[in-house]
Amino acid sequence: MIEDPLFGYRGIARAFLERNGVKIGDRIRVRKSKEKFAVEGIVMPRSLLAEDGFIEIKLDNGYNIGIRITEDTIIEKVREEKKEFKGGLIVPEIPKPKPGLPYVSIISTGGTIASKVDYRTGAVYPALTSEDLYRAVPEIADIANIKAEILFSIFSENMTPKHWETIAQLVAERIKEGFDGIVITHGTDTMGYTAAALSFALQNLPVPVVLVGAQRSSDRPSSDAAMNLYSAVKVAAEAPFAEVVVVMHGSISDDYCLAHRGTKVRKMHTSRRDAFRSVNDIPLAKVYKDRIELLSKNYRPRDKNRELELKNKFDNKVVLLKIYPGMKGDIIEYLVDAGYHGIVLEGTGLGHTPEALFSAIKRAIREGVPVVMTSQCIWGRINMNVYSTGRELLSFGVIPGEDMLPETAYVKLSWVLAQTRDLDEVRELMLTNIAGEINRRSLVSLYPPVI
Amino acid sequence: MIEDPLFGYRGIARAFLERNGVKIGDRIRVRKSKEKFAVEGIVMPRSLLAEDGFIEIKLDNGYNIGIRITEDTIIEKVREEKKEFKGGLIVPEIPKPKPGLPYVSIISTGGTIASKVDYRTGAVYPALTSEDLYRAVPEIADIANIKAEILFSIFSENMTPKHWETIAQLVAERIKEGFDGIVITHGTDTMGYTAAALSFALQNLPVPVVLVGAQRSSDRPSSDAAMNLYSAVKVAAEAPFAEVVVVMHGSISDDYCLAHRGTKVRKMHTSRRDAFRSVNDIPLAKVYKDRIELLSKNYRPRDKNRELELKNKFDNKVVLLKIYPGMKGDIIEYLVDAGYHGIVLEGTGLGHTPEALFSAIKRAIREGVPVVMTSQCIWGRINMNVYSTGRELLSFGVIPGEDMLPETAYVKLSWVLAQTRDLDEVRELMLTNIAGEINRRSLVSLYPPVI
Repeated sequence: MIEDPLFGYRGIARAFLERNGVKIGDRIRVRKSKEKFAVEGIVMPRSLLAEDGFIEIKLDNGYNIGIRITEDTIIEKVREEKKEFKGGLIVPEIPKPKPGLPYVSIISTGGTIASKVDYRTGAVYPALTSEDLYRAVPEIADIANIKAEILFSIFSENMTPKHWETIAQLVAERIKEGFDGIVITHGTDTMGYTAAALSFALQNLPVPVVLVGAQRSSDRPSSDAAMNLYSAVKVAAEAPFAEVVVVMHGSISDDYCLAHRGTKVRKMHTSRRDAFRSVNDIPLAKVYKDRIELLSKNYRPRDKNRELELKNKFDNKVVLLKIYPGMKGDIIEYLVDAGYHGIVLEGTGLGHTPEALFSAIKRAIREGVPVVMTSQCIWGRINMNVYSTGRELLSFGVIPGEDMLPETAYVKLSWVLAQTRDLDEVRELMLTNIAGEINRRSLVSLYPPVI
Repeated sequence: MIEDPLFGYRGIARAFLERNGVKIGDRIRVRKSKEKFAVEGIVMPRSLLAEDGFIEIKLDNGYNIGIRITEDTIIEKVREEKKEFKGGLIVPEIPKPKPGLPYVSIISTGGTIASKVDYRTGAVYPALTSEDLYRAVPEIADIANIKAEILFSIFSENMTPKHWETIAQLVAERIKEGFDGIVITHGTDTMGYTAAALSFALQNLPVPVVLVGAQRSSDRPSSDAAMNLYSAVKVAAEAPFAEVVVVMHGSISDDYCLAHRGTKVRKMHTSRRDAFRSVNDIPLAKVYKDRIELLSKNYRPRDKNRELELKNKFDNKVVLLKIYPGMKGDIIEYLVDAGYHGIVLEGTGLGHTPEALFSAIKRAIREGVPVVMTSQCIWGRINMNVYSTGRELLSFGVIPGEDMLPETAYVKLSWVLAQTRDLDEVRELMLTNIAGEINRRSLVSLYPPVI
């Protein structure tokens, strides 16, 4: 594992320590140029939620103090970091369970929120343990008793339906053990897909299941890791809803996070911290440091007596296929030949494909491969009754995906096909709202305004 | 062709005429219940830009008047529509060229803006001629001298690279004939793709080329066809920029249209009238009825002396392939086996794929099939240097698509491969900004706010 020698420090404080060649564990003496009085102690890691501009040191009496860096601050290294200060020793003690606080299970699967920069190459690796996360944001100990564990340490682009099954299995175990909420740290690239998968796999949820990630790793100045993790734990511990949600920054500043329903959320920006957006739905809540503000009344309430039903099988022979002008039918013919079990099309507009695909689509359905239609517009609803193209596709047996996200429809078809391959049953399940993935009414206002 | 017997009437007026069994061409007598005085004349088609709530009749003296429908309006049919009032006869005369007004060529390719509802089945067909459009919005005669013609009458989902070539060819001819601007009516489903195609095909443009469509057909009450067409003609006739743009509603009300750069525009909603959005760029202009408000200074100015360069060849063996968790390499292997010439990936996040695809991607590039990376996030920029997945993909020779839309990258690769199959040349062209498709600087503000 690559350790960040200045874990938790960013901005002014990081630059100052780097300039002075000081790292965590070093014994230093600090004073102002005009003063004789100096403070001596060991440089400690800093909470990522704490303000920039301070050095945190442990005094010999055992107390930690934060020293503000000003123009006249002078730092002097007394002794290099001792071997024994590496790793575990400087981790603050995991606090004993506090009676009265809810219990939250943190399951780490990898991604930027659990990653570190390799300072030799500048590349980012999934590395941090859940304990590191805990060390980074000790404030979470004030809102919940935490049990952290590592399930995977992978980039989310390498998640597969098999991984969804394993995550759902572990979440179900932790819920049965009595935890009041679950947090899953996850890479952001495919977090929306996994959120949808857990929404289908974890039926009749008694407590919240929260996916959280970060767009910038926790040792970068503008990292969103700490606030996202804190907000996720807050939702898991305190939110009134028992839903699978994604909790991420709600704006470009650090003012609040949003809790998005797992079947209605999508990563809409490659790099912004507020990349995740609810599509065709409003977020469930805004999450501030000190409170959760509900935005929707439409949720399943938290109820620890409700019995979770685990349905965590996914078919891994499903394809999500985007439509484009000039596309030919051969790709669909190949998918049928190769024995794929289901196809979700990301069609154009209200749910269309070129006529050139008609015969391949007919063949797929004839040979028992369900074809589901969604739209590459992303916002809005499939309506295949408006134009003759849509009506023809319906007549072949294409299943209209309503207002489902293409990604959610892909996950759902994979979940449905693990239960049945009967085309009529597949159709019925795909058209049934199971986990908030289909809203019967479209609210025209649920479309982001032009900037 | 299916004729609408109440062409141009919507809302109150349409309901009133239907209730009274009156259609265009009928001779009617209209009076208020309390008055003896009645007006008699022939029911005329109504401009789609005109206010609802009026019946337009031609008096025997040759003048047209609009009569407001009130609660006490009584209508009486004097004579059924005469045979000779069908079709052409009720079309207002095409006005003679007005000296001083710019000349605009309108090329119709189909789509909802040029479509009609079949009242027997409720389905929408591409049917209207450009003359019908002209009849629908006679106001365009006040801003330009129009020459309208039909090139295709197809749904835009059936557009192919071949069609792009033909459209570009005709546009080039019209520009060489001296038109001051070109309007192309087009289905909205793939209008973004065609706009990108024309942006690459029509190099060194001297005048604006405007694509326009409608989300609701022109005989529906809430149609956007008339305002969009009017605004498109205004841009073609008057805009200071010589660019390929899409002109569509800018908001849900009828207050303005937006002119979006052809390589940066995407249909983002299945049904809303303001479905088209600029992505990673600001629109070029707001188009009001009486003025064009520029939003960007970054454009090629109109200059009729500039010589158009037509580069309208497109390779039709290019694939746009969306990445999803659990995806396997076999689809890419198939594409290479099947002799496809290029692949644009719609990767996750900053430009990633599952590791499971690595060997197939390597093979594609080794066998001379360029692979271009874009992001399914839609907003933001590819950056494959941040994570090891991206760095590995770069090392195989994957071409990062910068901040290009996946759809634009697909069109561009098709255009590039029609010029060269040499991988180095393909890379260089893909990384060169040719028609505004790549912005070197990302403006973080170019992301729609949360509602």
